Amino acid sequence: MYAVGLMSGTSLDGIDAALVEIDNFGKKTKIKLIEFITTSIPLDVKDEIKRACSEEQSSVDLICSLNFKLGYLFAEATKNVCNKAGITLENLDFIASHGQTIYHLPKSRDSFIPSTLQIGEPAIIAYETGVKVVSNFRVMDMASGGEGAPLVPYSEYIIYGSDEENIALQNIGGIGNVTVIPKGGDINSIFAFDTGPGNMIIDEVCQRLFKLNYDEDGKIAANGEIQNDILDDLMSHSYINAFPPKTTGREEFGQQFVDELLKKYNNKKPEDILSTVTMFTAKSIAVNYKNFIMNKVNLNKVIIGGGGAHNKTLLSYLKNELPNVSIVTQDDIGLSSDAKEAIAFVILGNETLNNNFSNVPSATGAKEKVILGNITPNPIRRV
Amino acid sequence: MYAVGLMSGTSLDGIDAALVEIDNFGKKTKIKLIEFITTSIPLDVKDEIKRACSEEQSSVDLICSLNFKLGYLFAEATKNVCNKAGITLENLDFIASHGQTIYHLPKSRDSFIPSTLQIGEPAIIAYETGVKVVSNFRVMDMASGGEGAPLVPYSEYIIYGSDEENIALQNIGGIGNVTVIPKGGDINSIFAFDTGPGNMIIDEVCQRLFKLNYDEDGKIAANGEIQNDILDDLMSHSYINAFPPKTTGREEFGQQFVDELLKKYNNKKPEDILSTVTMFTAKSIAVNYKNFIMNKVNLNKVIIGGGGAHNKTLLSYLKNELPNVSIVTQDDIGLSSDAKEAIAFVILGNETLNNNFSNVPSATGAKEKVILGNITPNPIRRV
Repeated sequence: MYAVGLMSGTSLDGIDAALVEIDNFGKKTKIKLIEFITTSIPLDVKDEIKRACSEEQSSVDLICSLNFKLGYLFAEATKNVCNKAGITLENLDFIASHGQTIYHLPKSRDSFIPSTLQIGEPAIIAYETGVKVVSNFRVMDMASGGEGAPLVPYSEYIIYGSDEENIALQNIGGIGNVTVIPKGGDINSIFAFDTGPGNMIIDEVCQRLFKLNYDEDGKIAANGEIQNDILDDLMSHSYINAFPPKTTGREEFGQQFVDELLKKYNNKKPEDILSTVTMFTAKSIAVNYKNFIMNKVNLNKVIIGGGGAHNKTLLSYLKNELPNVSIVTQDDIGLSSDAKEAIAFVILGNETLNNNFSNVPSATGAKEKVILGNITPNPIRRV
Repeated sequence: MYAVGLMSGTSLDGIDAALVEIDNFGKKTKIKLIEFITTSIPLDVKDEIKRACSEEQSSVDLICSLNFKLGYLFAEATKNVCNKAGITLENLDFIASHGQTIYHLPKSRDSFIPSTLQIGEPAIIAYETGVKVVSNFRVMDMASGGEGAPLVPYSEYIIYGSDEENIALQNIGGIGNVTVIPKGGDINSIFAFDTGPGNMIIDEVCQRLFKLNYDEDGKIAANGEIQNDILDDLMSHSYINAFPPKTTGREEFGQQFVDELLKKYNNKKPEDILSTVTMFTAKSIAVNYKNFIMNKVNLNKVIIGGGGAHNKTLLSYLKNELPNVSIVTQDDIGLSSDAKEAIAFVILGNETLNNNFSNVPSATGAKEKVILGNITPNPIRRV
């Protein structure tokens, strides 16, 4: 059967829609990517998302409206990917939508309790497409005491689990996150955590200093010089050395973080700053690998996914930092980096519809395995 | 089978939980109230809800945390009502949760699109109780172009529909809303709308001027004198004479409204102000009946439900304004006023689980009938 996975990451690169053919579930899942597209988010909506994520600029009316607005964009993204593949909505069995995270609080803070908030109203998606929607995957893991992230480990286990190699899957979206799948292990042997920033700081610096959305192929960073004083300063961030399980987001490495960085180092050359934050991103990944992964398993292979897989400078920095490990991109091994997360949510949605668990407690810190997400029926009964 | 309906209204009186026995669905629905309780909301959470509803004071971190916090309170309310009835959670088939409305925007405003936002995370309710949850009923009606309210007409049609009398069901919660069920009609003949303020202004005035949560039995208002200058001023509010379908909320008759009222009339006696806003509430209902109901049907009976049914002064004012109509409370006819809305959501949740429509397009303005809400499975498979 056909399903569409929808993902809109913290990097605000656009709405990823993956149309896949999926059959069976659990370890017997058969999945094939049919089509993938990224639908860009209009600038005014992107601005609304940034404001909705900000403790200072957000408000209930903005969040209420934006939840519906994103629902319409997610429905449009679904239609776009189906159109491109020549498949009608009637042939779609379900849509699995991650939504747009606007806040994620893995630990209590003052009077606020651990919680997470993804928006992009599933009722709008279901009504506009006439297809049932599985959504809001993170909340149930948090209900069970987990951090609600990362959720990709389950799908990575389904797709990449190997009897021969210890594999790390490094996703570089807005945030960097890693899943370690020891060879021949069952799902309980998997562990995963957020390594720290992915493209978030790089993109924000690019926008501030070069008026570009991102550093294409890492070309600008390749021409700068790494500033060790800034790098040391950045590497002292408490998140880098914190023990997993741990998750992070825009509230830690977003606009405010870059504001302070650029204010403090306003005497430095723009391309040097970009090289340095690119190195910081690579090194934050490498340090986490050395401290929390390579001390446990003999790592054979790292597979890089997400938008950051296209940043050649970031990859070369990372290879230098981890000289004894084979580092390849998902595209190198014939899989789409860009579609990875959108495909992951189809796998999770499929488990929910089959009444099966799909969180990985060793990755999220949850007390137990739970069925994730909720189901919005197709609201219009077909006679 | 057993189900619990949960409702937390705009008046913030507490979380209503109705435990009912329900069988079959649609016009064949058999429903019986087993137990009803209202669980009070802790003061700090009540304060957080008020802030979350305010355009000025709300923020994404507050809303994110409060969504989860209310989930825990809703789970507790469910346990409380089951405990009181001596029924274990294992015997519960489903929970239907309305949630707490924190914003409702039936029409576009500036860059904001029509939308509504109810919180009280269903994943938390489902995890804490081990029971599946149907929730988020209003959004799908809005997806179909409706105002997302009122939703009680469907359940009122199921419970009260008569072949002999034209009936109006007036709910007086924070907001007042009416459903008109013409005799012998089918569901398409029903119409409904928000009449304006319910207890919202009365309660707020009571809190400001008397440090009381509400005017018990309307005793204080009974001792004041109606001030015609204030009353005329209030009756000129554009909502009162606006044509249905129409919905309103805390954003129109909430704290800000009362702030301005008390500032403008700070030379008046407190009990006179309370009498006058009580009369305003009664008269806003009566004027809406005369303009939009009694010109269409020969109204035989008005059944009053909601907390306002206990306000004897409000009821006597209303009877004076509508002398030729029989006005009774739900309790007068042997049904619980307080439990009405919580029961209504059990009926709606039951329709959703039976894949049946339950909005009333003539009441909400929706383009068509739709299946409302989404379903959060019991996350822990019982073996």
